[in-house]
Amino acid sequence: MGTRPWNSEAGQGEFMTCARQFYQFPGELELWRGGVLERPTVAYETWGKLNAQRDNAVLIFTGLSPSAHAASSPADSASGWWEEIVGPHLPIDTNKFFVICINSLGSCFGSTGPASVNPATNEIYRLSFPVLMLEDVAAGGKAVIDSLGIESLYSVIGPSMGGMTALAYAAQYPDSARSLVLISTASRSLPYAIALRSLQREMIRNDPDWQGGEYKDAGPVQGMRLARKLGMITYRSGEEWVQRFGRERIPEEHPSGDSFAPDFEVEAYLEYHAQRFTGQFDANCYLYLSRASDLFDFAEHGSSMEVAARKIQAERILIVGVASDFLFRIERQRELASIFKAADKRVTLVELDSIQGHDSFLADMDSFRPVLDSFFTGDWSALTAMSSIQP
Amino acid sequence: MGTRPWNSEAGQGEFMTCARQFYQFPGELELWRGGVLERPTVAYETWGKLNAQRDNAVLIFTGLSPSAHAASSPADSASGWWEEIVGPHLPIDTNKFFVICINSLGSCFGSTGPASVNPATNEIYRLSFPVLMLEDVAAGGKAVIDSLGIESLYSVIGPSMGGMTALAYAAQYPDSARSLVLISTASRSLPYAIALRSLQREMIRNDPDWQGGEYKDAGPVQGMRLARKLGMITYRSGEEWVQRFGRERIPEEHPSGDSFAPDFEVEAYLEYHAQRFTGQFDANCYLYLSRASDLFDFAEHGSSMEVAARKIQAERILIVGVASDFLFRIERQRELASIFKAADKRVTLVELDSIQGHDSFLADMDSFRPVLDSFFTGDWSALTAMSSIQP
Repeated sequence: MGTRPWNSEAGQGEFMTCARQFYQFPGELELWRGGVLERPTVAYETWGKLNAQRDNAVLIFTGLSPSAHAASSPADSASGWWEEIVGPHLPIDTNKFFVICINSLGSCFGSTGPASVNPATNEIYRLSFPVLMLEDVAAGGKAVIDSLGIESLYSVIGPSMGGMTALAYAAQYPDSARSLVLISTASRSLPYAIALRSLQREMIRNDPDWQGGEYKDAGPVQGMRLARKLGMITYRSGEEWVQRFGRERIPEEHPSGDSFAPDFEVEAYLEYHAQRFTGQFDANCYLYLSRASDLFDFAEHGSSMEVAARKIQAERILIVGVASDFLFRIERQRELASIFKAADKRVTLVELDSIQGHDSFLADMDSFRPVLDSFFTGDWSALTAMSSIQP
Repeated sequence: MGTRPWNSEAGQGEFMTCARQFYQFPGELELWRGGVLERPTVAYETWGKLNAQRDNAVLIFTGLSPSAHAASSPADSASGWWEEIVGPHLPIDTNKFFVICINSLGSCFGSTGPASVNPATNEIYRLSFPVLMLEDVAAGGKAVIDSLGIESLYSVIGPSMGGMTALAYAAQYPDSARSLVLISTASRSLPYAIALRSLQREMIRNDPDWQGGEYKDAGPVQGMRLARKLGMITYRSGEEWVQRFGRERIPEEHPSGDSFAPDFEVEAYLEYHAQRFTGQFDANCYLYLSRASDLFDFAEHGSSMEVAARKIQAERILIVGVASDFLFRIERQRELASIFKAADKRVTLVELDSIQGHDSFLADMDSFRPVLDSFFTGDWSALTAMSSIQP
């Protein structure tokens, strides 16, 4: 781990500052599926310094729910969602790279989304927000990059939905990035993932407190709790939970009158995470971003996946997947690798045997660190040794 | 398929009769975890004839939601849930075997459950129903068998929850069955399956119409719809859905004002099945049986799984599992086989590569038929050839 002088302050409960920066479009942003956003804002954070050649920038797109706060920094000492990956002397080394993490358009951590006020009406967008696509999220990232005067990125990287956004970015701006890192993602969503996300959305829409998107205050708390629990189930793996929980019971008695209250440790674990999520994410934003993941299809960028892949000019493409991932299965990572291979790209596919499922990129640092470290230090021979496809 | 003269009548929409029979306990049934049921009833159906030696009986326990109506018969011409397995000249050949299928205690298709009236109070049990275990469901089956004058069963067979019930039966009445057939089941529930069922229960309990179990009329329809959809997702497989649905869209436009209505065929499929289930199963019964599946642990029948397995006197044990089963994984079938193998039992483990997931025992007859056919005709060499473990 790198030395981070500000971390000690955070531990002492001192004031938190904000590292969030904003780019605002000067006019309308036309969206991929039609419709416009009036002067939308994209929130982002940066770490490290852009060098004189302006060629050391790394752009990160996030999964569905994180903010742009990937890591702590002097301006915001709170731990970020990729604290062990982004920082000084870490795999995405902020002593070497200028790192930019984007809060997706449609999200609720500073970027314009369904929870934002529509400047044309002075009312919150809610369901009047146009259909959002990951191409639009990518366009938000491109606008930030342009505003920073960066013409060519060292890399675009994204896990999960962020990986699909990175693909949308590369397809729309094919000469904008010299490499591409796709983690536990897919070229498009298949019916099993769509079904799971559809059910999560229905849990939210079905909560009477959703009020057809017109909720005030907390909104559909119960629906969000249920959706988060299903999320946790699909983000982790059975093997991990056998090791962590087995059939351990909760020591407490049931509260009287609730004979179906949690009995097992795994139920308490889900409840803890669901409660922690409550109030952290706007329900309508969740619906739009969840749907954007369903709708993404890389093949829309060409007459076929391969044609779309051929357009991308990245010199190196790294794909990382996890055997226990149930939502973005290892087969989907292999499919991505074959698409780029068929398009004569230089692809590395690393298949990890982490047991934490889809969330391994957040949970199994021991496996992910060496892969990203080799990639970002340019140790190609180490990377090739990890690859499951021939160069 | 066997000839079934009554099938042609059914096709013409003539009257349906009922094949359901009932056994009523003359007094109290003491339950496995404590508590009693006053004169409970167990509903069942039978096919074929008990022979003079009374040794040709096959007892079937069901999954969570089916009734005892496994197959059509002259008394009830409606198709049953295992119509292609149970019948004349079918794998469980009713020309040869006397077949009994049990409606689980706790269910709502004739057996006593939370939706039944408690004779002691003249009120519906609802949540005053005692904690139900699969050992109690097995005890209901044993009472029926005793009432029919059967001392030794040719076989006890069960898929899914029915397989766990068959294990509970064999453990409690070790010399009662000469063989055991366990399909897509487990020796106990592990945290991933518990988490999924816990979430289904929460969807139901969270529906305001559940009213703490005190609902009148239809009850928690929305909660049951959501729970059924999650059920469908966990019962099938991603591979099957890619083949069936891919990314096909629903042709219709969204109804106005509902921008998150289903877009994809897979969403319409889930909706169809959820609606079909609505009103078919009592919500409180669902909660009790779902919890009973979580609570089952074969190891409670001995100091260890192996000790419990040693008690069982069945001469042959057939275990069938499916590679694409996500809820009762193939590893759990292998674990069951090793438990019985370690206890020196004669075990056959057949691993099928059906793509329909957990539901393959209902959906992939071409794979299941030959396995069950070999078992029930006693073609041991054919069965051994299918087995993935050495005899």
